[in-house]
Amino acid sequence: MLRTHTCGELRLENENEEVTLTGWIQRSRDLGGMTFVDLRDRYGITQLVFDVNTDRKLAEKARKMGREFVIQVKGKVAERSNKNQNISTGDIEILADSLTILNKSKVPPFTIEDETDGGEELRMKYRYLDLRRQVNQDSIVLRHQMSIETKKYLNDLDFVEIETPYLIKSTPEGARDFVVPSRLNKGAFYALPQSPQTFKQLLMISGYDKYFQLVKCFRDEDFRSDRQPEFTQIDCEMSFVEQDDVLQNFEGLAKHLFKQIKNIDVDDFPRMSYEEAIRLYGSDKPDLRFGMQFVELNDVARGKGFKVFDNAELVVGINAEGCAGYTRKQLDGLTDFVTKPQIGAKGLVYLKYNEDGSFKSSVDKFFSQEDLKAWVDKFEAKPGDLMLILAGDVGTTRTALSELRLEMGNQLGLRDPKVFRGLWVVDFPLLEWDEETKRYQAMHHPFTSPKDEDIHLLEESPEKVRANAYDMVINGVEIGGGSIRIHDRELQDKMFSVLGFSKEEAQQQFGFLLEAFDYGAPPHGGIAFGFDRWVALFAGRESIRDVIAFPKNNAGRDIMIDSPSTISEEQLKELNIQIRKDEKQE
Amino acid sequence: MLRTHTCGELRLENENEEVTLTGWIQRSRDLGGMTFVDLRDRYGITQLVFDVNTDRKLAEKARKMGREFVIQVKGKVAERSNKNQNISTGDIEILADSLTILNKSKVPPFTIEDETDGGEELRMKYRYLDLRRQVNQDSIVLRHQMSIETKKYLNDLDFVEIETPYLIKSTPEGARDFVVPSRLNKGAFYALPQSPQTFKQLLMISGYDKYFQLVKCFRDEDFRSDRQPEFTQIDCEMSFVEQDDVLQNFEGLAKHLFKQIKNIDVDDFPRMSYEEAIRLYGSDKPDLRFGMQFVELNDVARGKGFKVFDNAELVVGINAEGCAGYTRKQLDGLTDFVTKPQIGAKGLVYLKYNEDGSFKSSVDKFFSQEDLKAWVDKFEAKPGDLMLILAGDVGTTRTALSELRLEMGNQLGLRDPKVFRGLWVVDFPLLEWDEETKRYQAMHHPFTSPKDEDIHLLEESPEKVRANAYDMVINGVEIGGGSIRIHDRELQDKMFSVLGFSKEEAQQQFGFLLEAFDYGAPPHGGIAFGFDRWVALFAGRESIRDVIAFPKNNAGRDIMIDSPSTISEEQLKELNIQIRKDEKQE
Repeated sequence: MLRTHTCGELRLENENEEVTLTGWIQRSRDLGGMTFVDLRDRYGITQLVFDVNTDRKLAEKARKMGREFVIQVKGKVAERSNKNQNISTGDIEILADSLTILNKSKVPPFTIEDETDGGEELRMKYRYLDLRRQVNQDSIVLRHQMSIETKKYLNDLDFVEIETPYLIKSTPEGARDFVVPSRLNKGAFYALPQSPQTFKQLLMISGYDKYFQLVKCFRDEDFRSDRQPEFTQIDCEMSFVEQDDVLQNFEGLAKHLFKQIKNIDVDDFPRMSYEEAIRLYGSDKPDLRFGMQFVELNDVARGKGFKVFDNAELVVGINAEGCAGYTRKQLDGLTDFVTKPQIGAKGLVYLKYNEDGSFKSSVDKFFSQEDLKAWVDKFEAKPGDLMLILAGDVGTTRTALSELRLEMGNQLGLRDPKVFRGLWVVDFPLLEWDEETKRYQAMHHPFTSPKDEDIHLLEESPEKVRANAYDMVINGVEIGGGSIRIHDRELQDKMFSVLGFSKEEAQQQFGFLLEAFDYGAPPHGGIAFGFDRWVALFAGRESIRDVIAFPKNNAGRDIMIDSPSTISEEQLKELNIQIRKDEKQE
Repeated sequence: MLRTHTCGELRLENENEEVTLTGWIQRSRDLGGMTFVDLRDRYGITQLVFDVNTDRKLAEKARKMGREFVIQVKGKVAERSNKNQNISTGDIEILADSLTILNKSKVPPFTIEDETDGGEELRMKYRYLDLRRQVNQDSIVLRHQMSIETKKYLNDLDFVEIETPYLIKSTPEGARDFVVPSRLNKGAFYALPQSPQTFKQLLMISGYDKYFQLVKCFRDEDFRSDRQPEFTQIDCEMSFVEQDDVLQNFEGLAKHLFKQIKNIDVDDFPRMSYEEAIRLYGSDKPDLRFGMQFVELNDVARGKGFKVFDNAELVVGINAEGCAGYTRKQLDGLTDFVTKPQIGAKGLVYLKYNEDGSFKSSVDKFFSQEDLKAWVDKFEAKPGDLMLILAGDVGTTRTALSELRLEMGNQLGLRDPKVFRGLWVVDFPLLEWDEETKRYQAMHHPFTSPKDEDIHLLEESPEKVRANAYDMVINGVEIGGGSIRIHDRELQDKMFSVLGFSKEEAQQQFGFLLEAFDYGAPPHGGIAFGFDRWVALFAGRESIRDVIAFPKNNAGRDIMIDSPSTISEEQLKELNIQIRKDEKQE
């Protein structure tokens, strides 16, 4: 090694040792005859001292080095006179007696600091410099630790990591596939996996009993801020299990990660039915760091002559405790918030329960104080509380109120990123109606098992069938989801038929899985976690892009390497494809 | 769980416990009123007993079950009268008192046994059944354990696993890329990585110091028996290292795996220069489980009038100790072996050093006994030895003799798969001349650093430049290889120029890396291991296909899922590509 120690390891115990360090120059300060240099590597920062009185030539060489130069320094460890309590090596410094410049550096296009002056585009182009910033190094190392701990936990429970193929087969079900033209099989294509779903089911049929994999998955979607064309899943499957076994096992994984990574003992995760989550929080991924549950007011708010309520399918509100003092301006702000197009409410009704026991609402002319008292009772509100009420059709109103609830959580500081509240949302509907294609689609995927007690509804009332499907939600983020799978050939055939597959289509796309069911498929189920999201949550970062070493931008481009890019005519020819003429791009 | 125990865990201590097991029926035997069933899961096999005298209905139900049925059985653990020492549960059996058939099975198309009656094609089609065979389960679990132990070792040394992208940029250098058409960037393509080489170098420039990744890589090659279009690497890189540091670190990994996985303490790996390996073994991946080093005979074998030798660039042989008794037929067999087209020797000369001290060779008429004595001295042969000699141009002759050496190793039982001998081959040439393109190509890759002392030869005698490159070889298999990289912009520019890149080409393909060198690139180097090969070596399996859960066949097809396959016209249109008309396939 070109060093004897890292920049993070020297302490007062090492005083007087002759050491060699390597690293990057974080900053340097000239103070009269002394030059102080902060030398940085992944492990920390150590202060170097070059003294013009000891070695003039050396000190002058040191003085000429710029930020981000890579150097090797030899010197003696000395106690610092003014210690720095903020860094682990803050008690010592190195009195340099030799200096080798291993590589120079141009002036970086932005500062290598947590609070950098570089904009996002610039930092993406120079991602290798952006990755030098401490905040990013912390996220990348955290990601590694979470990966290691995940594997440790699952390995200890006899899970086997098995790699499934990346060059698989395109299926029209689900999101859009990325495809790969085959050179040796002309006119044919592989597809990159959206998930290893069918392979992990086959592994259960093969008897592997407990499988997991940290695996890249691919979806060719129109990009949104928290989506990437390639992302990482913790993909898991177990045999001979019922739903509760899966939840226990993976709640255990979550607790293990909280304990090992963040040293937090989390409570057991409550289980909430999908129906209840929607009714009480307007969302299938409720943020349980705060209450503010929905209160439905249909029976007390309608029939009093206020048309907006009378014509509404649902009148529903939340109680913002202690907010009766909200000003006109603040309330207008909330109205603006809920009526934004992306939220979509028509308006906001408020009810203040004043400290003096009186009520004040935006709809006083329609409702008596007794009427309002009935609302307050429903909310179980106390003097000083502010109730915020929306009305309209059930779906839109709940969704809008859910957004308002989160906004109030933000305004009231109830969404502390250092506090974590998890839950399981269970009993998802098996199917959802798709207006566009006029047919049912699987809410999870076509291999999800309906609940035994609902199977009889499958043909007559498919929309009423609940699935053995579950999501793990932490702080309002869907961290993972899964289901007990169908393992019976007949039921799977029926499921495909309900989804509008012809026998031939089912056979052509999933024939190998259907056939596998004929050879002794065990009962099985599993789950997949969005690893990027989980890391972002633990790292306290906003976007999954912040916890991916080399992410793509919102257009799916890697602007550092300039990809995707054109390929040669020769390559196209070998692959037996060509660019469509009318849109050919140079 | 649908079980209380696995099929591998019950012992005599569990006697009289009421247990529930689940699994597959491996076989069943009817003996009078008793039906014995071997129930199998990943963990083992447990014997079940159904007694017609205890429960006639149950026993009859059991009797009707076929191989590979999936069942759940409750019963009491009892001591067996005739114990089976071959299995861990052989002391006990389960007296069944209830039986649930969880799933039926058709008769499998081949037997689920280590020695199966299924041919390769059939087993590939039903890979999920093939994977049930114990020999395959063992390989897949071994692979998992090697992965876990690799990560443990590297994590303990502060290596960070960092995921690099799969959707990257196509470069004409090296093997053929698989490409992925971009829908959002019309006419443009991503490429799948042949290795994360440039990304891991960028991570060093980013200061991550020690990186590793178990990662899929992709090469669109014409398939050979031990190649797969997708394969797994243990990819590693370190900063501030010299060659010896990398060798030490990863020899440590090999020793760790040998100890943890196979409980073998291996010797230190000798280091052998490429030149020496080629001279003594005719191969840059010599199998050191046995000696039989090459002995060159030019000075004693030429000039005696035997034209074949006189015209040969090289006369070289090996000594097969104790084989002087080889029969005419055996010797003819060896001649046939070396003259096969794929070996390519013109003929084989032998020299027997008989037990009585006399010599007998196939070229006796050209050489006196004294001449032959000089050969024997070169070989340091003893009475009873057989010397096998080839002649011709240097390259072909060494390669052919290398094959003959391995063949003799096989014949003499010197290549025991349970014995392991590793070494490092070092000092590879930096470049090799490519006759086809009439230019130099990088032997390793264009980022490999030449040896400091050879840099001055780079322009005038590029073929003489040695690289800081190394391979780890175990039992004649190249397990991994790597190099110290260039970290200096100027040297990298020069390297591209020696390789015949124009400035523009270098910039277009690797501009991001060249630019990164300008911002403080540390000295760095690394290695990548072929994980599939390493697992196959440890598992004692012939092909890497045997240790991949879902491999492709020699034509790059997954015949189980029937991939690659055609995609819809709609998909092609969205991707802005079309199949070339003249070769369109339905």
